[in-house]
Amino acid sequence: MPVDVYTWEPSANSGKPLLCLHEKQVPFVHHYVDLEQREHHEPAFLAINPGGTVPALVHDGLVLTESTPMMEYIDDAFDGPPLRPEDPALRWRMRWILRVMDTSVCPALAMIAANARAAPRLRDMPAAEKQAALAKIPDPERRRTWELVMHDATPPAEIAESQLRVADGLALLERMLGEYPYLAGPAFSLADIGTMAVFYHLPASRPDEVSAARTPRLWAWLARCHARPGLQAGFAMGRGAIAERARAARGALGLAA
Amino acid sequence: MPVDVYTWEPSANSGKPLLCLHEKQVPFVHHYVDLEQREHHEPAFLAINPGGTVPALVHDGLVLTESTPMMEYIDDAFDGPPLRPEDPALRWRMRWILRVMDTSVCPALAMIAANARAAPRLRDMPAAEKQAALAKIPDPERRRTWELVMHDATPPAEIAESQLRVADGLALLERMLGEYPYLAGPAFSLADIGTMAVFYHLPASRPDEVSAARTPRLWAWLARCHARPGLQAGFAMGRGAIAERARAARGALGLAA
Repeated sequence: MPVDVYTWEPSANSGKPLLCLHEKQVPFVHHYVDLEQREHHEPAFLAINPGGTVPALVHDGLVLTESTPMMEYIDDAFDGPPLRPEDPALRWRMRWILRVMDTSVCPALAMIAANARAAPRLRDMPAAEKQAALAKIPDPERRRTWELVMHDATPPAEIAESQLRVADGLALLERMLGEYPYLAGPAFSLADIGTMAVFYHLPASRPDEVSAARTPRLWAWLARCHARPGLQAGFAMGRGAIAERARAARGALGLAA
Repeated sequence: MPVDVYTWEPSANSGKPLLCLHEKQVPFVHHYVDLEQREHHEPAFLAINPGGTVPALVHDGLVLTESTPMMEYIDDAFDGPPLRPEDPALRWRMRWILRVMDTSVCPALAMIAANARAAPRLRDMPAAEKQAALAKIPDPERRRTWELVMHDATPPAEIAESQLRVADGLALLERMLGEYPYLAGPAFSLADIGTMAVFYHLPASRPDEVSAARTPRLWAWLARCHARPGLQAGFAMGRGAIAERARAARGALGLAA
């Protein structure tokens, strides 16, 4: 049975199944859902996932959502290189870091990005159009977040708090990579995929915080991950800025861009 | 090697490893951490888990946190009845429902409980003592939540939103239990443990919303779960209100209390 995957760009939650399927060498049919055009709140996509979130994966008639359980499904359901450690302690470590990324670092990064990029773009949208767009968001918490973004009204203290969470996340990764070459042990795993999906751009985007001198282990890990053909193929699926940022990151790391 | 578990009462996140270890029939040493006395923010506990969160589990020198990955570890690392389905689709279903509980239903229930029970209790605490208690909370988001609770200042709209999330959660469970007798398929699993840890009290606490007439599948599932010796032994570890609420729930279900 073919696998159908509905995602935006190969970044953050949308990136997880794309990078994972490429690493697992599973063929799939890709359906691009344009978040900037809010296609995820349109009837065509809501017919597939009524929750209105990407990514969604359809396999054997089953519609899967939630990118982290989705990655475990991909590793469970398909042949290909294993992407989870065998050892229970390392498996817990893998799930623990994915959880920290999902509950703390990713929401912080998303909030920073929304306020830095989406807010200026949405500033001049007519009020009626804003209301119509907000009314289509099924999840109330996301609706509230986007209401603040659309009116450029996110409190600066909340943005500062998010910046702090990202900095804490970087320090955590540097520390964990002192114990093993990959985040969940000696071998590449879903923990690395989930983290690369949000942090692939670090070498180019945060050169003052992340560099061979300041964060040597994180730098070496970024180079090891960006050299992987699977991840490269995943990032190459980006249509614009994301593929560009991945190329810039590889360039900063001294890899063939 | 013995397992050491640090938890509060067998409810919510603290309940997950306790119920899970009893179901798995794994012997363990239990250390009670009194949240109402804020023992989780005291140096003795922070020496074990610097994050200041319960539950924490110590096994073979490894300190594990985060209750949901911790349950998967217990099922991975110990002999005993398997608590996860073999089928990848059902395994995804198990992780999906745990995720919905963790990210939507549980925070909503915790917020309702904090405002209903902790806020009145804390109203008359001296301001300096409040500040000192807040300063000890390592996580900034928890700190903000508790600041609102301590000053009885949570916006009513946020409490109403939380009530709505709980109602949505109950409707979801009733729907899912129409497909299988347990939340992740034909067999009892971690999905049932995680959900029972927060919803065990429903038959007694929300009789207008949950009953044999209104939610017949959820009612039958609650009876099936409450009849299990493992869960009964877990809830019996409660020192006060929690064990009492579990007994009241079994009584409402017509089981031997």
